[in-house]
Amino acid sequence: MKPSAQPQRAPLQIAITTGEPAGVGPELTAQALAAAAAHWPDARFTVLGDAALMAERARAVGVDWAAVTGERGGGRIRMQHVPLNAPSQAGKLDAANGRYVLTLLDHAIDGALAHTFDAIVTAPLQKSTINDAGVPFTGHTEYLAERTQTPRVVMMLAGTGQRPLRVALATTHLPLKDVSAALTIDGIVETLRIVDHDLRHHFGIPAPRILVTGLNPHAGENGYLGHEEIDVIAPALKQANDTGIDARGPYPADTLFQPRYLKDADCVLAMFHDQGLPVLKYATFGEGINVTLGLPIIRTSVDHGTALDLAGTGRADAGSLIAAIDTAVSMARHRRAA
Amino acid sequence: MKPSAQPQRAPLQIAITTGEPAGVGPELTAQALAAAAAHWPDARFTVLGDAALMAERARAVGVDWAAVTGERGGGRIRMQHVPLNAPSQAGKLDAANGRYVLTLLDHAIDGALAHTFDAIVTAPLQKSTINDAGVPFTGHTEYLAERTQTPRVVMMLAGTGQRPLRVALATTHLPLKDVSAALTIDGIVETLRIVDHDLRHHFGIPAPRILVTGLNPHAGENGYLGHEEIDVIAPALKQANDTGIDARGPYPADTLFQPRYLKDADCVLAMFHDQGLPVLKYATFGEGINVTLGLPIIRTSVDHGTALDLAGTGRADAGSLIAAIDTAVSMARHRRAA
Repeated sequence: MKPSAQPQRAPLQIAITTGEPAGVGPELTAQALAAAAAHWPDARFTVLGDAALMAERARAVGVDWAAVTGERGGGRIRMQHVPLNAPSQAGKLDAANGRYVLTLLDHAIDGALAHTFDAIVTAPLQKSTINDAGVPFTGHTEYLAERTQTPRVVMMLAGTGQRPLRVALATTHLPLKDVSAALTIDGIVETLRIVDHDLRHHFGIPAPRILVTGLNPHAGENGYLGHEEIDVIAPALKQANDTGIDARGPYPADTLFQPRYLKDADCVLAMFHDQGLPVLKYATFGEGINVTLGLPIIRTSVDHGTALDLAGTGRADAGSLIAAIDTAVSMARHRRAA
Repeated sequence: MKPSAQPQRAPLQIAITTGEPAGVGPELTAQALAAAAAHWPDARFTVLGDAALMAERARAVGVDWAAVTGERGGGRIRMQHVPLNAPSQAGKLDAANGRYVLTLLDHAIDGALAHTFDAIVTAPLQKSTINDAGVPFTGHTEYLAERTQTPRVVMMLAGTGQRPLRVALATTHLPLKDVSAALTIDGIVETLRIVDHDLRHHFGIPAPRILVTGLNPHAGENGYLGHEEIDVIAPALKQANDTGIDARGPYPADTLFQPRYLKDADCVLAMFHDQGLPVLKYATFGEGINVTLGLPIIRTSVDHGTALDLAGTGRADAGSLIAAIDTAVSMARHRRAA
């Protein structure tokens, strides 16, 4: 007890969707919470999934799920049962469970919009299971944007630690040949506004500095290797700067990702997927996380897929999920303090 | 002396072009040879540049060039004087010296074609100095290809060490929006043939394994995010495999650059500049090197530019040049042994 009475703040409520039932999501959730829940004493966890599936997959990797969700977890971990549509076998996709995966997500999103949850953490899902169930679905991020009526979101991947490498993307999942046409001044300005806002309010960075890559090799070499830097990126930076955003560039991507530049950056904005993510994933050694910026709710995710070949074996690494939970808790703390 | 008489092999002859006189090339050459020449007892070095400039820039960074090229260097380092066209000041470009830079290169190339040199190592030059002198010039690599009448060369960047990360590029310096159209089945097959050949004969790797990226995010997700993987890259891999080349892929670039995949690879073939080089340069911490594959001569280079702002200060890092020399010596040894 502290000597003076302080108003007791309610614990942070974190929802975890366990994702594709045939993948590693359920077992990684069990492993992550069994190993690390004590690291976040101010948080409570709601695990969304089929209770029997969770118990079975936890057991397969040596975790006593009843104990974790009971006394051993100090009552801080709660299982919210959502029944499978069909029994699930590790590694075997079944379109019958496509709607189950979406139901988990819907519960989490509805809870976050109703402020029952302060943040949601999503384990990986398999797009094809949902599509094969007859539901058009292009990804977690797009689904979250649609369900929360958010016109533009930004995908950011990040490492962990004191000053982690963070990479946001100006464009995400589109063919490489369509990237140039997808870049607009307004789009980049809006992306920078979202990154700046969320770094301030959800990451507690009072004056974020964003370094921006060019689109072309050597950032176009003054127009010699492409014109998007001159026609689109530089004007967007100017507009963003005029609204008080500290965004600098465009810099050549192959020189920007070096310690002497990164040490002054809170985030790198890369123009496209394969310009920013190979180096981010190399640098984070499988402990990278994915954050969707621009949503009215806080959402983090692992940076890997369902790893069907590892499901049920215990050989998948819970590091990314632990990092995703850690980031969600930290973001929720910052938003509450703001 | 060895007990039995063995035929004495002539030392390996390495030419070093000191590049742009206003840049860091001259001082880094002095520092690299002063610090490390003894590491290559079987090599002799010919430094191409203005002798007075070399002495002056060496002195500025605390190296006694007369001693290095004299007794202290054991007679293994020779200065080949090529006079400047105009006096050069550190950090100040002067088009009057554009032809000087090309003359250094020409001497090195002619010597290598005549087998006077076993390899050449190039310090950085400034394209604009040469262009401003009225000579069309797009880069070291293109100039080497033209002067040696080589129809196709491959740019490969690499780290150092026992099993270094190596990244070759299917396309190099062209606008991003032109990359898709520049990829052809024949081009990728020929690129793989060159990489495979040079890894065998110049790097001493008996059965090189090459991992190949896709062009699009997630390697196109079975056509959902682009078709070049299906239409171009996969057929090229099939053709290359049929000729005995161990090339695998196409893999998503953001998962490929991770230890569990890289540990089995001798080289990654990336489809374009900013897909492969940010991670390579991040991973090599300023000690990366650039090798031109497919030439009839051996050529390595630093992976950085002229660093005009650092010229004459001694603050530039000779690590990449030392690595480039080390790789050139190693490649020359392997070619001689082949």
